[in-house]
Amino acid sequence: MSDTRNDLESVLIVGAGLLGTSVGLALSSAGVDVRLRDSKPEMLAEAVRRGAGRPAEPDDQTAQLAVVAVPPEAVGEVVAGVLGRSEAEYATDVASVKVLPGTQVRAHAHDFGRYVGSHPMAGREISGPGAALPDLFEGRPWVICPDEHTHQQAVTRALSVARMVGAAPVTMTASEHDAAVALVSHVPHLVGVLMAARLVDAPSHQVRLAGPGIADVTRVAAGDPGLWTEILTANALAVRSVLGELRDDLDELIGVLDTAEPAQADLYRLMRAGVDGRSRLPGKHGAAHTEFATVAVVVDDKPGQLARLFADVGAAGSNVEDVRIDHSPGQAVGMVEIDVRPGVDTELRAALTARGWHVHA
Amino acid sequence: MSDTRNDLESVLIVGAGLLGTSVGLALSSAGVDVRLRDSKPEMLAEAVRRGAGRPAEPDDQTAQLAVVAVPPEAVGEVVAGVLGRSEAEYATDVASVKVLPGTQVRAHAHDFGRYVGSHPMAGREISGPGAALPDLFEGRPWVICPDEHTHQQAVTRALSVARMVGAAPVTMTASEHDAAVALVSHVPHLVGVLMAARLVDAPSHQVRLAGPGIADVTRVAAGDPGLWTEILTANALAVRSVLGELRDDLDELIGVLDTAEPAQADLYRLMRAGVDGRSRLPGKHGAAHTEFATVAVVVDDKPGQLARLFADVGAAGSNVEDVRIDHSPGQAVGMVEIDVRPGVDTELRAALTARGWHVHA
Repeated sequence: MSDTRNDLESVLIVGAGLLGTSVGLALSSAGVDVRLRDSKPEMLAEAVRRGAGRPAEPDDQTAQLAVVAVPPEAVGEVVAGVLGRSEAEYATDVASVKVLPGTQVRAHAHDFGRYVGSHPMAGREISGPGAALPDLFEGRPWVICPDEHTHQQAVTRALSVARMVGAAPVTMTASEHDAAVALVSHVPHLVGVLMAARLVDAPSHQVRLAGPGIADVTRVAAGDPGLWTEILTANALAVRSVLGELRDDLDELIGVLDTAEPAQADLYRLMRAGVDGRSRLPGKHGAAHTEFATVAVVVDDKPGQLARLFADVGAAGSNVEDVRIDHSPGQAVGMVEIDVRPGVDTELRAALTARGWHVHA
Repeated sequence: MSDTRNDLESVLIVGAGLLGTSVGLALSSAGVDVRLRDSKPEMLAEAVRRGAGRPAEPDDQTAQLAVVAVPPEAVGEVVAGVLGRSEAEYATDVASVKVLPGTQVRAHAHDFGRYVGSHPMAGREISGPGAALPDLFEGRPWVICPDEHTHQQAVTRALSVARMVGAAPVTMTASEHDAAVALVSHVPHLVGVLMAARLVDAPSHQVRLAGPGIADVTRVAAGDPGLWTEILTANALAVRSVLGELRDDLDELIGVLDTAEPAQADLYRLMRAGVDGRSRLPGKHGAAHTEFATVAVVVDDKPGQLARLFADVGAAGSNVEDVRIDHSPGQAVGMVEIDVRPGVDTELRAALTARGWHVHA
């Protein structure tokens, strides 16, 4: 995955939380001299113990790059200090918003062209150095946000980190980034939360009828409330803009339903836009989701059934793109939906039927 | 699954589409004399060919129950005809809304106490007798909606059908039903559609950053636009009511984000409500989703990897509650998340690690 021409030799990581420690683990295992710093000694100790690097020392030579993994509002001051004291030639950060830290770096750092913002799009529900993983960024987009002041070498070094940890680098401006994550991450989160919040006071006989659809829509709502509050605050403007468009669509829909005879053509147009929008999402291999074919198999709810099923799928030589288990509340029978590439589904269906599985037509 | 004390001997099914034919397949295989009728001869022929029953004849004796599986707006007339001509002693329907057909039965049928509305909460993305499945209703809620006029025997017979096809019967009023499906099915669908519709005109560099969260939120939006237009039209009032509450919450959220310094406490309260609402959803065994523990395993994207993984999970004796495959656009590595009962996760983690899997901590 790494581009050996641009491999880094020395990196300073400031902030030994989930992201900083994960970067340290991946770079250390690639042979980089990783120096770690954290204002909390116990965090630093844990990261060092996990093998993410060694504690930074005052007489360390200047690192090729600093990776600043602190909360968004602290990025500016930390980057200015690191560059001002020549602890690193260049600096990047890993905050999940990019306009705010960029503004603060320009306010604090004299030589802000040596900084480039970045955002590895990976995370976990749990935090801290103990939750860090060397492969956290494997296959994930790592967005890098240069502007007209950014030195090319800062970008090159940020690209090197992204590649060395196995991520897929993507370049765009900070405001493009913030608008993008508002649309594809922050607002979807809020939509799931708004829907889930409607269940808080719902009578049990209503909630009991919930099926797989609402479970999918609200899955994101289980995320950490504190972390999401920070993210939304830091990206309030971009989020607000997408929410405004969403409210316009919602108002239009309510207007249609408020008429005595709702106009079917208006409802149909919205449903159709949903299908079209959904089909634009990238799939596992960059393909649209709709390009997969689904094979649905009935299984008993017993240990070993899935093992037997996937052994048979494997024996059929079919590569699985996605799997869903359909919930049947209180029943001993379930349905497994297997997504495969179109064409593969026909053979897979035949192979599974031949092995005695009940495959839906 | 069937309750032999109340098993039915003869049933007339009117409407040989997906639901009617599926009921016919299940009841026929249980030995019931199933008579089928459809205004379209080719639909009837296909249902008979599939083994869902025999064509109804003019000299048939009165059936114990008619299952009317026609569009909601046609239920009233069909039920009135079936009861008026004594083709069946009692009648039920299977439309996905219940207030509208109930009103129309009372308008058309003299003896409307012999009718009880019902709604088997199962379906497929494809329709027609060719898509019918004998186990379509297995483990699904089947809602039955009596009112003060309903004969007890009508309810008993509808309960028998539900049990004989393997469904889990639930009783509530028609308006309770319509409010419940608006909340747990129709509005979640619209929320997913509204979010997906925002992607239609989004630039590619934004859509490209989409991850598993927005994929979950918008999965429902791929559903058939025509069918959903009909459902929403028939349940417009109840849907409108939930959408109004949702808009109030959205307006409040936008109001918070519109202030110069968004109040973190307000945002946190909403996020917290999302977590709480989500936790009320029934899981596979009626347990809350949050009661499961997740084991995350790194797998190569090669045929046979899932087979090997689930064989090892099975060998560990762990019953799997849910499975998700995490998408890594364009990369050859994926993550499989396995939900098991709490406590089981520790042993499973140890067992998989011992067998050489990379299990996240």
